[in-house]
Amino acid sequence: MQAARPLPNYLIQRYQGWKATTYSENSAWYRRLATEGQRPRAMVISCCDSRVHVTSIFGADQGEFFIHRNIANLVPPYEPDGDHHGTSAAVEYAVTALNVSHLIVLGHSSCGGVQGCLDMCQGKAPQLEEKTSFVGRWMDILRPGYERVKDSHAEADQARALEKESVLVSLSNLMTFPFVKEKVESSALTLHGLWTDIGEGSLEYYDTKSGTYQPV
Amino acid sequence: MQAARPLPNYLIQRYQGWKATTYSENSAWYRRLATEGQRPRAMVISCCDSRVHVTSIFGADQGEFFIHRNIANLVPPYEPDGDHHGTSAAVEYAVTALNVSHLIVLGHSSCGGVQGCLDMCQGKAPQLEEKTSFVGRWMDILRPGYERVKDSHAEADQARALEKESVLVSLSNLMTFPFVKEKVESSALTLHGLWTDIGEGSLEYYDTKSGTYQPV
Amino acid sequence: MQAARPLPNYLIQRYQGWKATTYSENSAWYRRLATEGQRPRAMVISCCDSRVHVTSIFGADQGEFFIHRNIANLVPPYEPDGDHHGTSAAVEYAVTALNVSHLIVLGHSSCGGVQGCLDMCQGKAPQLEEKTSFVGRWMDILRPGYERVKDSHAEADQARALEKESVLVSLSNLMTFPFVKEKVESSALTLHGLWTDIGEGSLEYYDTKSGTYQPV
Amino acid sequence: MQAARPLPNYLIQRYQGWKATTYSENSAWYRRLATEGQRPRAMVISCCDSRVHVTSIFGADQGEFFIHRNIANLVPPYEPDGDHHGTSAAVEYAVTALNVSHLIVLGHSSCGGVQGCLDMCQGKAPQLEEKTSFVGRWMDILRPGYERVKDSHAEADQARALEKESVLVSLSNLMTFPFVKEKVESSALTLHGLWTDIGEGSLEYYDTKSGTYQPV
Repeated sequence: MQAARPLPNYLIQRYQGWKATTYSENSAWYRRLATEGQRPRAMVISCCDSRVHVTSIFGADQGEFFIHRNIANLVPPYEPDGDHHGTSAAVEYAVTALNVSHLIVLGHSSCGGVQGCLDMCQGKAPQLEEKTSFVGRWMDILRPGYERVKDSHAEADQARALEKESVLVSLSNLMTFPFVKEKVESSALTLHGLWTDIGEGSLEYYDTKSGTYQPV
Repeated sequence: MQAARPLPNYLIQRYQGWKATTYSENSAWYRRLATEGQRPRAMVISCCDSRVHVTSIFGADQGEFFIHRNIANLVPPYEPDGDHHGTSAAVEYAVTALNVSHLIVLGHSSCGGVQGCLDMCQGKAPQLEEKTSFVGRWMDILRPGYERVKDSHAEADQARALEKESVLVSLSNLMTFPFVKEKVESSALTLHGLWTDIGEGSLEYYDTKSGTYQPV
Repeated sequence: MQAARPLPNYLIQRYQGWKATTYSENSAWYRRLATEGQRPRAMVISCCDSRVHVTSIFGADQGEFFIHRNIANLVPPYEPDGDHHGTSAAVEYAVTALNVSHLIVLGHSSCGGVQGCLDMCQGKAPQLEEKTSFVGRWMDILRPGYERVKDSHAEADQARALEKESVLVSLSNLMTFPFVKEKVESSALTLHGLWTDIGEGSLEYYDTKSGTYQPV
Repeated sequence: MQAARPLPNYLIQRYQGWKATTYSENSAWYRRLATEGQRPRAMVISCCDSRVHVTSIFGADQGEFFIHRNIANLVPPYEPDGDHHGTSAAVEYAVTALNVSHLIVLGHSSCGGVQGCLDMCQGKAPQLEEKTSFVGRWMDILRPGYERVKDSHAEADQARALEKESVLVSLSNLMTFPFVKEKVESSALTLHGLWTDIGEGSLEYYDTKSGTYQPV
């Protein structure tokens, strides 16, 4: 590996700040976590977006959340075909090895991935249609969501509606995994759909009864 | 989507705490981030492990890092075959759309995914060899790392050595992406390999010259 | 311009050191900052004093803080009379063109400007009373602060009290700028008053509720 | 002062990092600086721009540089009219009270203030012409520079040329201060004009002999 470079100084300084404060104050707990292993209560699937850190929103400390982050917080359908499936692997590990109690999917406003999907489905982003576009092929997962959104919402509202659909598509796909379905049905695992507005700091959850998102 | 449930109370309470403090103190900035879009300086690829939060280690605030988290911080090789590739999509978006300046891969001690790979490669985990094992098929990405580790390290040291190899495998695979290679070669992007010890709070970076990890 | 001289060697050497290390490690980011423009999160108004570098105290990297430094971190009242007002221009640019989210005024211990104001107000520095004294006329801005301090503090404590008043005078004057007041009232901008002890490395913030400075 | 708010958490964390590392390693020196007072070798006049930190470029540690930062690193002409003059006060204090040996003016590329002056002089920014525009009235100081640049440079090159003129205008105006002129003529003080390119990290100094900027 010839290309690697040392860490930029500003990150070294910040790391040393963390070491001297947060780590120093919690080293006993961190040592126990290292020795005894992690025992997270929930898995969170959220977006890579730099403006949405679930560790901040829920004040998640070391050891609490097993967090998978990908573009647009998507879970693909169950497809055990022997290929690499990073998201499915993370879900499998959390549910079958770590036995998390909650599986939370967190969507958010101004999602670039969702906007790309919208543009693609509306024929405005031909480059995303190409076979070689990883973002395009990843956002294919959300196409069924677009089908539900395109007629029921005015064009100005479709991006937000599709962001919220991205959470529901993921939850539906999660239920296609046998080990998820089984645990949900035996109440050993609960699923939760959330959506947050970056600017307003608001949080909504998907309410099954009404079939709508409600403020937390 | 019938399976979703409301958010557990303990998380509602924490969210309200965040809203009343962190959000409230920074709402002007969060609103700007929502309006003007994100402009992260770095992408970080780290593990889902609940004990390793890069947002904490580097004091990363909203807007700074574009973060992808998967099991064992792995990047698969470039494979534009039209299938879903969540990690490749995240890398593509960060490098070509967001133009991040740094791409950091962060490994860690006591990594369950790496341990699974080691067990699998040593013939101790037949269930991970099955085609239907998402974790096994995901950890296949790390097999070339095992080949380098198995003869050069005593068995007791192989887990840690393989954790560090997982970072190097990812960095090497990143260089198989044309858009990464091109930017690295033109100095528009730098790659960085890091490994942290959960219990000790230490941080090491991969030093190209010596071909070893060095303390930060 | 006949008087300019080349840079002293010791500074050339330091610059070369920076170029070979910090710049080299961050050139991709610096190029982006040059191309895309700055987007600082906060403006800081602090003293010219060589012992107080806010870039160090807050680990501020390139692009983060818009920094105005003048003697005693003072902001004069809003006075749009057509004359040159460097501080007012800096505030106007930060708030209306850059849309910073925070405006921080940072005072400090052993401030020579504040001591000069104290001496002048106590009749001990006639030279500062002269119309031609730029320092004296600049420190006139702080006279209202002296009025509040002179009776409430013993003489030995007046310098420190006046240093802390210099921050409050600036914050009050900031609120006389219509574009500051409007943004503060709409929560698009927050004001913060800080004071640091050079020798102890301590930091205090002005707490509105108690009307006193509190340790950070 | 009712408007002040506590410091945002991310800055508290960074401050604590500085306290635990940089301060802790240098506390003996900082205590001496507090007790014995500052004795800076140079005064630097640079821009407020968040992308140009002279403390970084010259690795300036606590106690070395007395730093004044304003928009476009401008010094107005000597005008002892009894009004507030923040820049003149800083120069007076550095030269007559601190007896600095060097006075360095540092300009930079992509300067928003200089661009504003250019727009204003070319009739493209009527709002900057208004009496109430602090930025416009501050940039009036640079108008003589525009007069020199407008005919000698193609329009595409005028911004950069004017950035470099901003340094020369300041140096010329500095020589109108009697206490500066006298010390320069007796070799007790040297003036230096610098200009840095943010993206390239390059540094140029004004060479009196050739009347041009030369790479350092």
